[in-house]
Amino acid sequence: MHYKQLSQQIFKKSSYLCVGLDSALDKIPSHLLKEKDPIFEFNKQIIDATIDFAVAYKPNIAFYEALGPSGWETLQKTIDYLPKDVFTIADAKRGDIGNTSQMYAKAFFESLNFDSVTVAPYMGSDSVKPFLTFEEKWVILLALTSNEGAQDFQFEELQNGKPLYEKVIEQSQNWGSHENMMYVIGATRNEQFAHIRQLIPKHFLLVPGVGAQGGSLKEISEIGLNKDGGLLVNSSRGIIYASSEKDFAKAAAQEARVLQEEMKVYLDQL
Amino acid sequence: MHYKQLSQQIFKKSSYLCVGLDSALDKIPSHLLKEKDPIFEFNKQIIDATIDFAVAYKPNIAFYEALGPSGWETLQKTIDYLPKDVFTIADAKRGDIGNTSQMYAKAFFESLNFDSVTVAPYMGSDSVKPFLTFEEKWVILLALTSNEGAQDFQFEELQNGKPLYEKVIEQSQNWGSHENMMYVIGATRNEQFAHIRQLIPKHFLLVPGVGAQGGSLKEISEIGLNKDGGLLVNSSRGIIYASSEKDFAKAAAQEARVLQEEMKVYLDQL
Repeated sequence: MHYKQLSQQIFKKSSYLCVGLDSALDKIPSHLLKEKDPIFEFNKQIIDATIDFAVAYKPNIAFYEALGPSGWETLQKTIDYLPKDVFTIADAKRGDIGNTSQMYAKAFFESLNFDSVTVAPYMGSDSVKPFLTFEEKWVILLALTSNEGAQDFQFEELQNGKPLYEKVIEQSQNWGSHENMMYVIGATRNEQFAHIRQLIPKHFLLVPGVGAQGGSLKEISEIGLNKDGGLLVNSSRGIIYASSEKDFAKAAAQEARVLQEEMKVYLDQL
Repeated sequence: MHYKQLSQQIFKKSSYLCVGLDSALDKIPSHLLKEKDPIFEFNKQIIDATIDFAVAYKPNIAFYEALGPSGWETLQKTIDYLPKDVFTIADAKRGDIGNTSQMYAKAFFESLNFDSVTVAPYMGSDSVKPFLTFEEKWVILLALTSNEGAQDFQFEELQNGKPLYEKVIEQSQNWGSHENMMYVIGATRNEQFAHIRQLIPKHFLLVPGVGAQGGSLKEISEIGLNKDGGLLVNSSRGIIYASSEKDFAKAAAQEARVLQEEMKVYLDQL
């Protein structure tokens, strides 16, 4: 998907919501376990219920990999089920030497036809660039994550006084553009968010951590939105596990709608 | 596998060779393509041919993932085929927030029963620790990799004058011990190798980059070996693609034997 198409979808749906499909057998409503492929059935109903309120879907690859070969089939069915006008993210956090990253890129962009994949920066340029050679496909690079462990290395101050995550953002400007790269910036990083937005005014930011992890949609939106949208705010458990009963899809729709309606307010203010 | 068992295997076989199973359909000998599962047939013959010379095997997960569900089945068959007394490494370079890393750990340690998995450090403690809660299982943490992109961030000097990779090694000492953690240190990093060995005298180091990438087995061994062995030196393409003809397994055995015989010399000098 092109930058422009994604931007158009955001204004068409008045939403920059990404629904995270962290779907696990021990978390989905028990009545689905009698289905042939319970996870796919769950994803299908979640997608149907939330499609009017979301512009992006993000299967968390670990949850499918943990199921072995059948999990990979479930993932394939899920991506095939998603309409072509939503932006799809393989949340895989891959990254390896060049010929290996090339194989991961093929797996997610060709076999599975995702629009984007999350990539870890530690191994540097040749671990990221192979993902950037595919037309209309995106790298979403980890920069400043929402988890506690981000403190261990991402905030480390370098000799020039800047933190590591800023070096990651700056260095990676040489690898791609705002038309094929996004960055993961946690919603719990308000203090850093404004400066990051100044550094990369045009790039889309994928923002996890709203809700359960304590990030504020209002603050992130006020700082992070740009004239093209420029944000994808993810919610996973808050939406898909809003209810563990037979009404789970309706409850998911309700949670997604609440977020979308709040997003509409911020988009209308642009 | 326990630290002691691995050490015993090294001295029993006079080898610290790891064979990297980067097996790809467009690289294996063409006569195998008529097999029902060409990659498994290739791996099987490679394993049979090299088992006397190697103590560890390292499937590169990207190469299996790129094949979709059937690749995952091939991976399962390969790990099931490997004898219990070899050390198995899922070269996956995973790492995500806690509950997601937990799922990856289950995938590789429970479903597939690998002894170890390679993990990327960027997301910090809670992305690594879930892998350390499994008995007799190992994290192999990326520290200083052999690829060119390592220059981008791993060598960045921090405020205390130390490079980032050293901070990764130091910080992660709080997460595990030499009995459940190893580090990836590229064979192309001779200059840094001696200092790293001083920092972590007891830890096993997984060393890629000998051969094709220019690292010297002699230099690495002289600096890196300790009384328990302490090294796993990987060779992938140099062994498995030593020949692209019907004699590929014999050629692989020959390459593995040459490395093992050189390793025996260094082990005998300990």
